[in-house]
Amino acid sequence: MALIPENTLITDTPEQGRELAIAMARKTIGAIQTDPNVRKELRPGYATNADSLTMAAHVVAVEFATIAAANNYWR
Amino acid sequence: MALIPENTLITDTPEQGRELAIAMARKTIGAIQTDPNVRKELRPGYATNADSLTMAAHVVAVEFATIAAANNYWR
Amino acid sequence: MALIPENTLITDTPEQGRELAIAMARKTIGAIQTDPNVRKELRPGYATNADSLTMAAHVVAVEFATIAAANNYWR
Amino acid sequence: MALIPENTLITDTPEQGRELAIAMARKTIGAIQTDPNVRKELRPGYATNADSLTMAAHVVAVEFATIAAANNYWR
Amino acid sequence: MALIPENTLITDTPEQGRELAIAMARKTIGAIQTDPNVRKELRPGYATNADSLTMAAHVVAVEFATIAAANNYWR
Amino acid sequence: MALIPENTLITDTPEQGRELAIAMARKTIGAIQTDPNVRKELRPGYATNADSLTMAAHVVAVEFATIAAANNYWR
Repeated sequence: MALIPENTLITDTPEQGRELAIAMARKTIGAIQTDPNVRKELRPGYATNADSLTMAAHVVAVEFATIAAANNYWR
Repeated sequence: MALIPENTLITDTPEQGRELAIAMARKTIGAIQTDPNVRKELRPGYATNADSLTMAAHVVAVEFATIAAANNYWR
Repeated sequence: MALIPENTLITDTPEQGRELAIAMARKTIGAIQTDPNVRKELRPGYATNADSLTMAAHVVAVEFATIAAANNYWR
Repeated sequence: MALIPENTLITDTPEQGRELAIAMARKTIGAIQTDPNVRKELRPGYATNADSLTMAAHVVAVEFATIAAANNYWR
Repeated sequence: MALIPENTLITDTPEQGRELAIAMARKTIGAIQTDPNVRKELRPGYATNADSLTMAAHVVAVEFATIAAANNYWR
Repeated sequence: MALIPENTLITDTPEQGRELAIAMARKTIGAIQTDPNVRKELRPGYATNADSLTMAAHVVAVEFATIAAANNYWR
């Protein structure tokens, strides 16, 4: 299973870097909970809980910080 | 859907960088919970809970750290 | 509403940087929960809960890390 | 017990860096809770709880940030 | 009230940097909950709760990261 | 009480850096809860709770990030 799509942190744009951050966070979850049915069952509860969403957004922010540094902030 | 408005981390001022941090955090939530009605329903509960607000402020702080570095801290 | 007082991360001293970190964290909360009365009502509960205080201190620490880097650590 | 497999942060690819991040996080847990049976018993509960999974993903993101910096982001 | 003792992040040794990290975290709490009696009352509950202690240790780790960078890691 | 064993962040290997990260996190806890009996009593509950273990692993990851930077990632 690929944890990092295309095996690189380099993206053309910040937007693509952000998409990569979300993908990387999701793939970590997939590496821990490998059963897609369980992941699907968890989704409704977590996507309707504000704190769960904030926690997920936090992880994306941390992943994105790494990706942004890797890309020299697309300056 | 745009995850990063204007597709850049570069802003003219710290204030604008801060606004971008808030926007980016919100857009991540929007990417996870795509139904605007659900997001609207979650808002009253979370905006009146001190810990939920602190958690949200934490995410903004992390996003802002990245944006500030991207802008060389607007020195 | 100003999210960053004086629109700069640069301060004369670490102490002032710390005050800015606290102010920035508070202003994020103010941007999410715009009603000052609600914020005031939340305060007693959160200021008498050890974990809530620790969570708030965490956010200040993250904001301060950015401000300290912006100021080259006031070396 | 080895906390860092092969005792290096350097990897050939981002994907391998990501695997190392997951391994390092797991080995920390193993260093704190040294009984493998207890760890095994904890797994079902935590792998079926969305917030627990998000917390775990957060730790992986932090470990990966360090590994990515160590590898100059595999640029 | 001084948020940063001696108004500097520079210390002679890592040990002193660590003490500063703890002091800074505590002073943030003191800035939010200004009543020393309330802080004293909160202490027994929080100092006997493992997760509360871990949360506090997390804040110290974040403060220390900033202090260590400020001191070029005392290399 | 020593918060940082040997008063340095410099280690010979990543593995030793990791051990230092765990030691530093533990010593912070010891600085906050100074009674070793209380710490011992807390251990069973926290070492058999997945989220508590994840929180502890998070702190170790943050400490390690600082130590790794101090050692130029042992490159």
